[in-house]
Amino acid sequence: DEIRDYAREIVEKEIERHAADGLGMVDYALASGGGRVLRHSEPYGGGVWFLNRVSPEAGKMIRPSFGEPGQCFPLKGSSGFIEIRLRSAIVPEAVTLEHVAESVAYDRSSAPKHCRVSGWLQEQDSTDSEVGSKKMLLLTEFTYDLEKSHAQTFKVESASSNLVDTIRIDFTSNHGSATHTCIYRLRVHGHEPSSVPMLEKQS
Amino acid sequence: DEIRDYAREIVEKEIERHAADGLGMVDYALASGGGRVLRHSEPYGGGVWFLNRVSPEAGKMIRPSFGEPGQCFPLKGSSGFIEIRLRSAIVPEAVTLEHVAESVAYDRSSAPKHCRVSGWLQEQDSTDSEVGSKKMLLLTEFTYDLEKSHAQTFKVESASSNLVDTIRIDFTSNHGSATHTCIYRLRVHGHEPSSVPMLEKQS
Amino acid sequence: DEIRDYAREIVEKEIERHAADGLGMVDYALASGGGRVLRHSEPYGGGVWFLNRVSPEAGKMIRPSFGEPGQCFPLKGSSGFIEIRLRSAIVPEAVTLEHVAESVAYDRSSAPKHCRVSGWLQEQDSTDSEVGSKKMLLLTEFTYDLEKSHAQTFKVESASSNLVDTIRIDFTSNHGSATHTCIYRLRVHGHEPSSVPMLEKQS
Ligand SMILES: [K+]
Ligand SMILES: [K+]
Ligand SMILES: [K+]
Repeated sequence: DEIRDYAREIVEKEIERHAADGLGMVDYALASGGGRVLRHSEPYGGGVWFLNRVSPEAGKMIRPSFGEPGQCFPLKGSSGFIEIRLRSAIVPEAVTLEHVAESVAYDRSSAPKHCRVSGWLQEQDSTDSEVGSKKMLLLTEFTYDLEKSHAQTFKVESASSNLVDTIRIDFTSNHGSATHTCIYRLRVHGHEPSSVPMLEKQS
Repeated sequence: DEIRDYAREIVEKEIERHAADGLGMVDYALASGGGRVLRHSEPYGGGVWFLNRVSPEAGKMIRPSFGEPGQCFPLKGSSGFIEIRLRSAIVPEAVTLEHVAESVAYDRSSAPKHCRVSGWLQEQDSTDSEVGSKKMLLLTEFTYDLEKSHAQTFKVESASSNLVDTIRIDFTSNHGSATHTCIYRLRVHGHEPSSVPMLEKQS
Repeated sequence: DEIRDYAREIVEKEIERHAADGLGMVDYALASGGGRVLRHSEPYGGGVWFLNRVSPEAGKMIRPSFGEPGQCFPLKGSSGFIEIRLRSAIVPEAVTLEHVAESVAYDRSSAPKHCRVSGWLQEQDSTDSEVGSKKMLLLTEFTYDLEKSHAQTFKVESASSNLVDTIRIDFTSNHGSATHTCIYRLRVHGHEPSSVPMLEKQS
């Protein structure tokens, strides 16, 4: 009976976390929360693309995928970038890159591999990204590992508490596709200046 | 091994319930089942709103949220109401009010707090709610508690078996927001006159 | 502690499978993966239907239902058929027919009952189904059982490794509705000629 209670308690906690957007972590990039894609490298497929135009499909990268293959945005080639305006300025603590799970995927060679995430404070509501004049911060560099969970979270390396409201991810390689790289979802975690850090809350 | 079987059995049951719309209870307000929003108090934000017009976004209150922040309908101020026509006339047994889970929410001060749910039988396909001439039933009064599960179910208090096909929820306060109150989802549970009561079925 | 670890391990595996489209099996009929409905028998309700026209709503049958009642496509009467072009030619190994779970359903008399699935290789991008000249394969015959899981998987009976890129399901009865039969989702599992069979992968 005690064992049964143990089991039920663990199950309920895990399902609750699963039901809470899969990870149970606040995502400041989420479209329904106010995030939006500012810029991206050339999309794959489709028709003509005008430089610096945001594709109407680009929002897929900041919306849930619900485990469904194809709910991603494909960028041309094996390297590229995305820039996202967050819902508000935060002290960034971690980012999550999500691809489709192996068990339901047709092919995962289009998953990003080596990635670098940077952030800065842009504030004025401009989509013109003159990053030269901003204080850019390197947040983290990581490798998305096809053997691990489909949603992989990477901590921000610096211990600084600089505010950012814009995030850029550069991927410099993928897992083998010569033609395109698919982004299922990018999440950005952290805390607003007035609130308690996420990591402290959890401990 | 016996323990392993125990654990697996509990897990499977709980996941099945989770997969079954989160609660595994029939919802007669659900939009895809035929429910629809008849009236609501003034929406928050957006442009001009004409009295008694139903906002095209109002249906969000009777559709699943899938754990995503922002999948709600915001009403102006800290009090207001919604009226919903159910898919069919039922003997009401419980209602569920759902907000977004704390672990993924930016801010939960917009959650409703004190609520009162009433119901009546309108039948004729009229959206004009002349409730004065109907037999209105108080179904339940409750307080949505931010410390509990994000989907909270409240039993209908009366033991009567009156039929209702229309439900109204009045919220008279929220959890702190001065500007707006967000409704993620309202569900209405019960049984059709010809069928076995939900609560008996479960026992 | 060991028990706790056992339990957690089982829970995590099961939730992962649940998150991976419910079954953790690749679906070559899925709309977001490139599948599409080619033909179907007469739809139920709505207005005029032109013979051999595919209803704009027919895609619901190859998209996830997320446990929501009503996310299905209704066909007229208690028998009918659907034809689906797969995302690519595969050696078929199993099909899954999904209906809504009993715990959230208003009525399940519209579920299909006796079903027969066949497949063939059409290749040329034609929606005109001159099946007389194709090599049609009977893949499986089954009965959808309302007492079992809402998503029921049936193995392809033949041991052959014929390629198919088009699937047809004929249902010859349903669970009681005289007016219509609802198809929530049909999935087709198997492997591409170049890859390892699904069933071997799992063992
Ligand atoms: K997505
Ligand atoms: K909702
Ligand atoms: K569906």
